[in-house]
Amino acid sequence: MSAPQGILITAGKVHVPFKTELLGTLGSDKFAKRAPHLVGILATKKEDARTYAEFTKKACESIGINFELRLVGEAREGMDGEGVGIDVEEAILEANDDDDVDGMMVYYPIYGGRQDQYLQSVVSPYKDVEGLNHQFLFNLYHNVRFINPLTLRPIPASHLPQPLKPSPSDGDSAPSGTVKSILPCTPLAIVKVLEHIGVYNKMLEYGDRARGKVITVINRSEVVGRPLAALLANDGARVLSVDIDSIVEFSKRPSVPAPSSPKDSTTPGPTAAISPTAPAPALSSSKFNPHHIITPLPASTTLEDCLRISDVVISAVPSQKYKVPTRFLKDGAICVSVAAERNFEADVRDRAGIYVPSVGMMTIAMLQRNLLRLCTFKDEAKKLSSAA
Amino acid sequence: MSAPQGILITAGKVHVPFKTELLGTLGSDKFAKRAPHLVGILATKKEDARTYAEFTKKACESIGINFELRLVGEAREGMDGEGVGIDVEEAILEANDDDDVDGMMVYYPIYGGRQDQYLQSVVSPYKDVEGLNHQFLFNLYHNVRFINPLTLRPIPASHLPQPLKPSPSDGDSAPSGTVKSILPCTPLAIVKVLEHIGVYNKMLEYGDRARGKVITVINRSEVVGRPLAALLANDGARVLSVDIDSIVEFSKRPSVPAPSSPKDSTTPGPTAAISPTAPAPALSSSKFNPHHIITPLPASTTLEDCLRISDVVISAVPSQKYKVPTRFLKDGAICVSVAAERNFEADVRDRAGIYVPSVGMMTIAMLQRNLLRLCTFKDEAKKLSSAA
Repeated sequence: MSAPQGILITAGKVHVPFKTELLGTLGSDKFAKRAPHLVGILATKKEDARTYAEFTKKACESIGINFELRLVGEAREGMDGEGVGIDVEEAILEANDDDDVDGMMVYYPIYGGRQDQYLQSVVSPYKDVEGLNHQFLFNLYHNVRFINPLTLRPIPASHLPQPLKPSPSDGDSAPSGTVKSILPCTPLAIVKVLEHIGVYNKMLEYGDRARGKVITVINRSEVVGRPLAALLANDGARVLSVDIDSIVEFSKRPSVPAPSSPKDSTTPGPTAAISPTAPAPALSSSKFNPHHIITPLPASTTLEDCLRISDVVISAVPSQKYKVPTRFLKDGAICVSVAAERNFEADVRDRAGIYVPSVGMMTIAMLQRNLLRLCTFKDEAKKLSSAA
Repeated sequence: MSAPQGILITAGKVHVPFKTELLGTLGSDKFAKRAPHLVGILATKKEDARTYAEFTKKACESIGINFELRLVGEAREGMDGEGVGIDVEEAILEANDDDDVDGMMVYYPIYGGRQDQYLQSVVSPYKDVEGLNHQFLFNLYHNVRFINPLTLRPIPASHLPQPLKPSPSDGDSAPSGTVKSILPCTPLAIVKVLEHIGVYNKMLEYGDRARGKVITVINRSEVVGRPLAALLANDGARVLSVDIDSIVEFSKRPSVPAPSSPKDSTTPGPTAAISPTAPAPALSSSKFNPHHIITPLPASTTLEDCLRISDVVISAVPSQKYKVPTRFLKDGAICVSVAAERNFEADVRDRAGIYVPSVGMMTIAMLQRNLLRLCTFKDEAKKLSSAA
C-alpha cells in the first residue's frame, strides 16, 4: 500500500474568502455610482502576457471592476489609428495623470531586467496596484507597514505633460527658479569627450549639436548605454543602440523607411542605409516634453550594418573579452572605449580617425562636478522655499 | 609606407579644462571654510571596486574635495569594531540623513542587476553625485534639463530612522493618520496562501506569525524572491534565499554559528544545521526601523542542505525546465510553486504534506485588493491635507 499523497491546495480555493471580501467592498456605497477603473497596459507581443491580460480582464469583470486594456508599442503591431506612437512609458504617464484611472498594471517583461524596473518606478504610487514602485519596495524591505499617504511621491506633475520653456540658448545657465538636473556621470563623461573631439558642433544650437552624426552605442544598460543613447539623441544624433538581443534607434528625427533594406543588396557598401521598421511619429505630435523616440530596426540588422554607417562608435561592454570588429568601421570613425576594458580589436587606430581608449578619469571629473552642483541645490532650494 | 594611425586622445587630456573649472569653484569663497564632503561607500571585496575607490580618493584629494571611504558588509571582512553589521543600504540612509555629507557614491556592482538598481534609488537625489537615481534618469529620458530643486523627492525622513510606533496587535487596521503600505501582489499572494494553509499561526502576535518556520525561497528577483524573503523574515520566519550564485539567510533572529558545519559531517541528516558565516547583530542594535537582517551562508551551502531543513519550500523560477529535486524534501514539507511553471518534480506529492501548484489566481485577487486600497488612499490623503 502506497503512502497517501500530499494535499493539493489550489489558489482558487484560497481565493474564496478574498473574493467575498472584494465583493462586499465593491457592493458598498463607495462604489455604488462608479466602479473602480483599472487600466492594464500591454506593450509586448508575448503570448503569456496577452493571456495574463485576458485572465485579469475576466477576473475583474466577474466582480465588477471596470478593466480597460490599453495596447501600446509592439502589442499594436498590425493595428493603426489612435495610440500608435505612444510608447509604454507615455501610456503609464497618461494613466498617472488621468483622474479617471484608479489603478494600473503593466504586463512585464517588456524590455526585461533593469529597463522594466525603471518603468515600475514611473508608475505613480497612488495607482500602483502591483506594488512594484521603489517606494513600496523600500517600505517592504524596511518593514514599514503603515504610511502617511501624503509621503508618497509620484513623478512631479509639474514636469509633465507641459513641455518646459525652451532652454536658454547657451545651455550653461539654468532658467530662473530652476537648476540643471544631474546626469549620470559615465554617459556625461562620454558626451564631454565627444564635445572635446569635435563630434558636437558648437556652431549648432544648444540641444542639437550632435545633429547629422550617426553614433553606434554598444550596450543598453540602465547605467551607461541607455541613458547615453537618449542623451545623444536628445542632442540631435541618430543613435544605433546595440545590445545582445536587439538593435534599436534613438533619434529626435526618426528616418522614413527606405524602399529597400540593406539586406536586399548583395554588396552593402559603407553608405548602406538602415531603416526603422515603421515610421515614427514626429516629435511635435507628442504632448510630452519633446524627447527622443525609440524605433525598432529590422530584426536582420547586424552590428556590422551599424558600424559601416557610424561616424562614432562607443563600446561599453563590461567584459575584456568583447572586442568591436574593427574591419567594419568606417575609415576615420571616432572610437571610444568606455572604462578600461579596451573594447576594440588591437588594430583600431589603423581605421579610426580618433581613438579614446578609456573615459574613467572624465567620469570622476563629472562626479566631482555633480558634487559641486548638488552643493548649490541646497542653497537654491532654501531660496525657493523662503520665497514661497 | 603604412597609413598614419588614428589620433589617440586620453581622458586625462580631455579632463584638463574641467579640472581648471573645478579648482576655480573649490577655491571660491563658498568653499573657503569647508571643503565639500564626498562619501564613498564600498561594500564589496571585488578588486576593481577597491581600485576605483582609491582612484576616486586620490582624484578628490588632489583638488581639495574631502573624500571619506566607508567600508561596509563584505568589504569589512576581517575587520571588526564600528560599522560591523551596517549593511550598504543602511550606510546609504545614514549618509542621506547626515547634514555633513554633501554627496555620496556607491561602488557597484554589489549584488548585481536589479538589487543594485534598487540601491541607486535609495540614495537621496540631493546627494546623488552618480546621477543614477530614478528621478534623474527619468529627467534624462524625458529631456528635462532644468528642474525646480524642491521637486526632488528623497525617501521621506519621517520614515526613518525613527522606528514607527508598534503596530496594532491585529494588524488589520492602520494607526490613525496612516494607511497600510501596498505590497507587491505576487509575494503578498504567497503570504496569504501560507496563512490559509496554516504556516502562519494566528496564536502568535501580528508581525511574528511565521516564527519557528524554516522557509526556502528559490529565486531572489526584485519582483518575487527578494521581497517575499523579506516579508516572511519580518513575519518571524527563518528564510533561506537561494539564487543562482548564492544562498543567504533572511531573518529577524539571526542564528549563532554552530560549532561545526554540516559539511564536516559525513552523514548530514534531516536535522543538519546551516549556520551563517558570522554572527549578525541583534535587531535592537539597529537605529533603523526594526527589520530583517541578511546574513551570508557558507559558500559550501547547497540547495540540498536548505531543502533538508525546510518546513516550507517556495519555488519561483521563471522556467518550466527548472524542477526542485523532491528527494531532498523533508517528509511533509509544504511546497508552493509560483505561477504556472510547476517548479517541482512530478512526484512532489509523494513527499509534500501540502502542495500548491500555482498562485496566479491569488495574485490577481491581491492586485484587486491593492486597487481598492489605493481608492481609499486618495480619500485619506484629502482628509490629511485638509486637516493640515
